[in-house]
Amino acid sequence: MPGTTPNFSGSPRVVNTLVVMGVGLIGGSYALALKQAGLVKHVIGVGRSMANLEDALAHGIVDEVTTDPQYAIQKADLLMLATPVGQLDTILPLVERYLPAHAMVTDAGSTKGNVVALARQHLKTRLSAFVPGHPIAGAEFSGAKAAKPDLYRKKHVVITPLAETDPEAVLAVKALWEVCGADVREMTPDLHDRIFAAVSHLPHVLSFALVEALASRENGSVFFDFAASGFRDFTRIASSHPEMWRDICLANKQALLAELNEYRHQLDRLADLLASSDGEALEQVFLTAREARNAWLQKRQASLQV
Amino acid sequence: MPGTTPNFSGSPRVVNTLVVMGVGLIGGSYALALKQAGLVKHVIGVGRSMANLEDALAHGIVDEVTTDPQYAIQKADLLMLATPVGQLDTILPLVERYLPAHAMVTDAGSTKGNVVALARQHLKTRLSAFVPGHPIAGAEFSGAKAAKPDLYRKKHVVITPLAETDPEAVLAVKALWEVCGADVREMTPDLHDRIFAAVSHLPHVLSFALVEALASRENGSVFFDFAASGFRDFTRIASSHPEMWRDICLANKQALLAELNEYRHQLDRLADLLASSDGEALEQVFLTAREARNAWLQKRQASLQV
Repeated sequence: MPGTTPNFSGSPRVVNTLVVMGVGLIGGSYALALKQAGLVKHVIGVGRSMANLEDALAHGIVDEVTTDPQYAIQKADLLMLATPVGQLDTILPLVERYLPAHAMVTDAGSTKGNVVALARQHLKTRLSAFVPGHPIAGAEFSGAKAAKPDLYRKKHVVITPLAETDPEAVLAVKALWEVCGADVREMTPDLHDRIFAAVSHLPHVLSFALVEALASRENGSVFFDFAASGFRDFTRIASSHPEMWRDICLANKQALLAELNEYRHQLDRLADLLASSDGEALEQVFLTAREARNAWLQKRQASLQV
Repeated sequence: MPGTTPNFSGSPRVVNTLVVMGVGLIGGSYALALKQAGLVKHVIGVGRSMANLEDALAHGIVDEVTTDPQYAIQKADLLMLATPVGQLDTILPLVERYLPAHAMVTDAGSTKGNVVALARQHLKTRLSAFVPGHPIAGAEFSGAKAAKPDLYRKKHVVITPLAETDPEAVLAVKALWEVCGADVREMTPDLHDRIFAAVSHLPHVLSFALVEALASRENGSVFFDFAASGFRDFTRIASSHPEMWRDICLANKQALLAELNEYRHQLDRLADLLASSDGEALEQVFLTAREARNAWLQKRQASLQV
C-alpha cells in the first residue's frame, strides 16, 4: 500500500515492554541497542541486587526496575533471560505461569542443550513462545555499567529454535538481533553445544589447566619468571571468571568431555611423533595448523571490517 | 688510579671485532645494540645468502660481510653464533680450529642441552671460551631488516656456562648483554630446557595441536566460523614458524616429552572431575589458575615499566 512501510516477515516490530532479567553486560547491551534503534518503548530490568539495577536505571539502560520477577513477567511483550543459567530453575516456572499469551521469551545462555532441557521441563505449555539464543560477545567486563549499545555489532548470535517454537517468534527475535548489528545463525542446540565445546570451552579448560599445573609446582615461580608474550596470549582466557566457567563446563559436560577426549588422543599422537623424532610429521601438523589459523584470521578480519 | 675508568669485573670491555654468524633479527639486533653503545669497533656478518648480508650492510648492522665462516672466525674477538642450531655441526669444528686463542664464543640458541652436547663434541679444546646463551626475545619478524638496537631492552637473557667455561668470559658476555638492556640470568642447561619446555614449547605444541585437530575435521570450517577472540589469542602461537618449531621440539625432546606427559595427566584429572560433575574441584582449578596468572601479569607489567 502506498504510504505504508512494507510489512514483510522478519522486519522488526516495535516491542512495547521489554523485560530483561539480569541487567549485566549482555542483557543491558541488548536493551540499549534496541532502545537506540527505537524498537522498544519501555524496559523493565529485573535483578536480585538493587545496586546494579540502580546503575542500570541511572545509565538509561532500563526505565523501571524491580526485584520481583512475577510482576515483570506479567508486563512483558518480550522477555530476555540474561541471568546465570542456574537461576532458570526458579524463573521458568514463573514464565510458564505468568507470561502473557501473546508474549515471546528468549535467552542468552552460552550453552543451549541444558537450557532447552530446562525449558522442556518448566515451560511445557509455552514452548511455542521460546526462542533459545546465544550472543557471542566477549565478557571481559561485567555488570550494567559495562553495557554498550554496539556490543553486538558484527558479532554472531546463534538461535536454536525448538520444533515447537512459533516460526513468527523466531523471525521476530532474529530481526531484533539484526537490529543490534548481529549476524544471526540458526542451528540445533546439539550442534551449537558441540561447536562451542570445541572452539571455546575446550581452549578455556586447556589454558586453565596449563596455568594451574605450573602454579602448583614446588618451584613454579621460577618457571613463571621466564614466561613471555606467547604464554601471556595462550593463557589470557585463564583469567576468565572461575565460577562462570565451572557452570559452563558442567552445563556442556557431554560435548566438552567428547572434545577433551579427542584432544587427548591428539596429544597422544603428537607425543608419539615426538618420541620417535618424526620431524616431518610434526612439521606437517604445525604447518596445517598455521595455514588454517592464518586463513581463519584473514577471513575474520575481513568480516570485521565490513 | 686517578683519570682512568675503574676496571672492575663485569664492566663491558670494547670488542675490536665482533663476528655474527646468521645476521637475522637476533644476531643483527645484538650487533646494533653493541654498536650503538660504542662497544664494538668492527662487525663482520657471516651468512649463506648474500641478499640478506647486503641488507645487513645497507642497514649499518655490519661493516663487512662474507659467506666464508673460516675467514670470519679467524678475525673474531667475540663470535656470536645466531644461526639455526642445525648449522652448528658444520660451524663448531671450524671454531675449534680457527678461533683466535684470546677470543670468546657465545650463541643464541633457544635450547641449550643440545648446543652444549654439540660443543662438547666439537669444541673440545676450546670449551673454556664458550658461553652458551639464550636471549628471550620475540621472533614475529625475521631477517636482518627486522633487527633493532632495543630488541633486548628489559628482556631476559639466560646464560648456561659449562664447568669448563672461563669465568672471565662469562662476565664479559654477561656485561655485553646488560649493555643491550637485558636482564641476564645464569642457570644450568638442564634447568633452562625444563623451564622453556614448560612455559614456551609445550604451549606452542598445545596450540598447534588444537588448530590442526579442528582443521582436520570434515566440518571444520563450521567450527572455525564461531571461533572468537579467546580462540584468536589462545592460538596466536599456532601461527609460528613450523620448521623452527619442529627443530625446537626435536632439540628439546626429553624435557618437552616430560612436560607433555605431565600435562596429559593434568587433563586426565580434569576429565575425571568433569565426568563426576565435581564443580567445586573444577572451580578451584580455575581459581588457582586465574590468581596465578593475574599475579604473574601484574609482576610482569611492573617489570616492563621499570
